[in-house]
Amino acid sequence: MSAALAVVGDATSRTFEFHVRVYYEDTDTGGIVFYANYLKFFERARTEWLRHGSVDVPGISQQQVGATHGLMFVVRSTSVDYKRPARLDDAIRIVSKVERLGRVGIDFHQEAFLADGTLLAVGRIKVGCVSRDVLKPAPIPDAVRLIFVDR
Amino acid sequence: MSAALAVVGDATSRTFEFHVRVYYEDTDTGGIVFYANYLKFFERARTEWLRHGSVDVPGISQQQVGATHGLMFVVRSTSVDYKRPARLDDAIRIVSKVERLGRVGIDFHQEAFLADGTLLAVGRIKVGCVSRDVLKPAPIPDAVRLIFVDR
Amino acid sequence: MSAALAVVGDATSRTFEFHVRVYYEDTDTGGIVFYANYLKFFERARTEWLRHGSVDVPGISQQQVGATHGLMFVVRSTSVDYKRPARLDDAIRIVSKVERLGRVGIDFHQEAFLADGTLLAVGRIKVGCVSRDVLKPAPIPDAVRLIFVDR
Amino acid sequence: MSAALAVVGDATSRTFEFHVRVYYEDTDTGGIVFYANYLKFFERARTEWLRHGSVDVPGISQQQVGATHGLMFVVRSTSVDYKRPARLDDAIRIVSKVERLGRVGIDFHQEAFLADGTLLAVGRIKVGCVSRDVLKPAPIPDAVRLIFVDR
Repeated sequence: MSAALAVVGDATSRTFEFHVRVYYEDTDTGGIVFYANYLKFFERARTEWLRHGSVDVPGISQQQVGATHGLMFVVRSTSVDYKRPARLDDAIRIVSKVERLGRVGIDFHQEAFLADGTLLAVGRIKVGCVSRDVLKPAPIPDAVRLIFVDR
Repeated sequence: MSAALAVVGDATSRTFEFHVRVYYEDTDTGGIVFYANYLKFFERARTEWLRHGSVDVPGISQQQVGATHGLMFVVRSTSVDYKRPARLDDAIRIVSKVERLGRVGIDFHQEAFLADGTLLAVGRIKVGCVSRDVLKPAPIPDAVRLIFVDR
Repeated sequence: MSAALAVVGDATSRTFEFHVRVYYEDTDTGGIVFYANYLKFFERARTEWLRHGSVDVPGISQQQVGATHGLMFVVRSTSVDYKRPARLDDAIRIVSKVERLGRVGIDFHQEAFLADGTLLAVGRIKVGCVSRDVLKPAPIPDAVRLIFVDR
Repeated sequence: MSAALAVVGDATSRTFEFHVRVYYEDTDTGGIVFYANYLKFFERARTEWLRHGSVDVPGISQQQVGATHGLMFVVRSTSVDYKRPARLDDAIRIVSKVERLGRVGIDFHQEAFLADGTLLAVGRIKVGCVSRDVLKPAPIPDAVRLIFVDR
């Protein structure tokens, strides 16, 4: 990971690693993981990052973001490059960081690797924070943003 | 279809045919349709039956069932026997009928066939009618039940 | 778990616990886990049981079952009763055991629970062992069957 | 559609319209279509375009592309912008065209609309043609390319 990429404005992106296993449900008749499913893997990783928190910041579930802050996250755009195929039983490591942190949105950079370090896919997922009732853009609470960046 | 099966209490089950196409998303690394996806195919068929209505009964969407009657349908149980595999590009014909029609629930009998008549899967799906607000069992409105049976 | 249920012919079923987390991908517009996805949860649990092995039997992956024994498992039938709904962020515990162990097939009994013990769903999944090349029923190797039962 | 966009090198992109219906399986607990599923909708549309052919070019299924030409298509990258949410029962119109046609790959531009013309999502899907045996890039046969462009 380049240091340059990890700088997010005045802050520095934290990173989070998460593992997913490939099951039959994830594969297709080409014998590989169906490409759309990387979006699921990336979302699981972001969700667990949020739930896990960071070293000095407690985690929070998506349900709690709604109950406590009246907010929810929506995906604005996704972009994925597929490099190599994964197969049944593979253990996939997802490395997530923040590429840009705005007032009402976060751009995530997420990579999927095999255990041997083979890069499978690179995703850029732009997420927006909205009020749960009228779905209008809303500022990301500090309790959430400090999970992803250091200040 | 046996006549005996089509008798539902005092009424007679109508039948409905619906076609689905097998795409990459439906298959797995075994080269066949992933078995759980037949539940999706069967649900699409029930939903389109509801929307289509019958010869003398106008159809209704699931959203309208909620908006007009304050009701929704929930799946109580599913049972599927897998007979033969389907593959990418196959056109699957779903034949649906009602096996039992209760006051607050419907038991569907649904079969999936290839174009050449090969039986792929047989499903029995028990659906319950509940109030949308508190999810308590609620009588199926006549406007809905007469879509599925003749009286 | 009743002892009677755990007796499988002359043998005794082992049990296996596995946890899955509910993500957005698993839910539907009813605000709950889409019922078909319990089949995915149950399959993940069976796959991990196989991979994990038992206290005195090494595990094996589905890929290895193919590579080593020239076999694969296919799902013959599924039956699921839905008791209570699960929601986003819920941690679901899957408890699996063997109900019947035949020469060429295994009947699994699988239950899904919330952390507080609420029973969500009960599944009976019949799996067949077939040769990978011609897909004919084939005896389950001892290296596999002893993962699931004690002799 | 701008004319500029439809010019593909020396050729002109044809366009193809395809409709998909939103079922429970497509939605999530936010009450809308789960964003990853647009990749499925777009793929269905490309597959049906291929199968349908164009006014003067017979269609071909993905299976036939393999059987006749020894080729298959793989997705190299996907990029989707989400504009508005779709909901249960919505009928979605997918309009597909070709943005770039290379020797071994096709870049598709695909848009999803509601019946009232509301733009839901815009996708750019880059597909590569590879030999089915060793998965190496291979020239797209004329029988396939002329389905998508006029020469």
